[in-house]
Amino acid sequence: MARPGGRSARVQEAVHGAVRELESEVGRDALTVPLVAARAGVTPSTIYRRWGDLRELLSDVAVERLRPEAPPDDHGALAADLTTWAEQFLDEMTSPPGRAYLRDALLGDPDGSNAGRCSAYAADQIDVILARATERGERAPDVETVIDHVVSPMMYRILFRPSPLDSDYAHHLVAGLLDGPVGAASDGTDA
Amino acid sequence: MARPGGRSARVQEAVHGAVRELESEVGRDALTVPLVAARAGVTPSTIYRRWGDLRELLSDVAVERLRPEAPPDDHGALAADLTTWAEQFLDEMTSPPGRAYLRDALLGDPDGSNAGRCSAYAADQIDVILARATERGERAPDVETVIDHVVSPMMYRILFRPSPLDSDYAHHLVAGLLDGPVGAASDGTDA
Repeated sequence: MARPGGRSARVQEAVHGAVRELESEVGRDALTVPLVAARAGVTPSTIYRRWGDLRELLSDVAVERLRPEAPPDDHGALAADLTTWAEQFLDEMTSPPGRAYLRDALLGDPDGSNAGRCSAYAADQIDVILARATERGERAPDVETVIDHVVSPMMYRILFRPSPLDSDYAHHLVAGLLDGPVGAASDGTDA
Repeated sequence: MARPGGRSARVQEAVHGAVRELESEVGRDALTVPLVAARAGVTPSTIYRRWGDLRELLSDVAVERLRPEAPPDDHGALAADLTTWAEQFLDEMTSPPGRAYLRDALLGDPDGSNAGRCSAYAADQIDVILARATERGERAPDVETVIDHVVSPMMYRILFRPSPLDSDYAHHLVAGLLDGPVGAASDGTDA
């Protein structure tokens, strides 16, 4: 639907940019569709037609902000790569902006597609890490297993548990996965 | 704050009841604070003072609906108890009303306390299951481990993954936990 470089992509870029600018200028609670439309140089009906309402637009913008900007760091070993990635993911998602984006992403998402994009970003990063491990000859779990054992517990606690989380928790989850039978990494190749 | 039988508890009961009645009569999208207040026999300001706004009230009502009505079934063995509980939890949370309550609970929850109550309900049910296992002499993981390995993956996929979930997935998670080293149940006492 949004061909890169096409009109659709230009509209998206202008509207997303307008939301980001106005959020920092007037604050998130003062945003309205007419205000965003005026700043983006489009009509309000363009926004309503494409995004539905303000909440869905904010969800779309939030998901874009959660998109990783670069592939995960390569530390030469699966355990190090996965631990570093998990620590960074936890750090980003528990930061005040990360929590706000996550909340916006989930709230204005009647069909679940934006939440699905968030999950796909994480899965893509993990895929890169696992493919590198396989290339090195390391045994590696599959991506769904990493989602279940590392990503899900972090996200659950971010959303449902008020207690603070630190990088020890990310480390504990990765170690539990790679030392366990599901990790298929218990032969010591990366220990 | 809400003494059982006190005025505060009576107000909560009347307002929650009004929301439930009006939801089925006029639909969720037609609810307003004045409408709920009139049905409950309280002033709108009572609702604003206690709940903040409609979204926070709906969140509170949703959390009450997610409260378990009875302790989990006792099947005489940890694996059976945990599998049955996880299957029922998944079934409830993936049903259309369950998804709607979950969404309402998370949305109108600026300080995370309602989400924390949802999580505490699950933890309390799991605690009962684990205490029974310990009484029987079965080795059992701790409640946080069950949250990480069983509850979190289900909730993550409900919120972030569009693909359908069935009871096989709940069974797979419990089996992975109890057969793995973190489950501390690998001595075969419940196998």
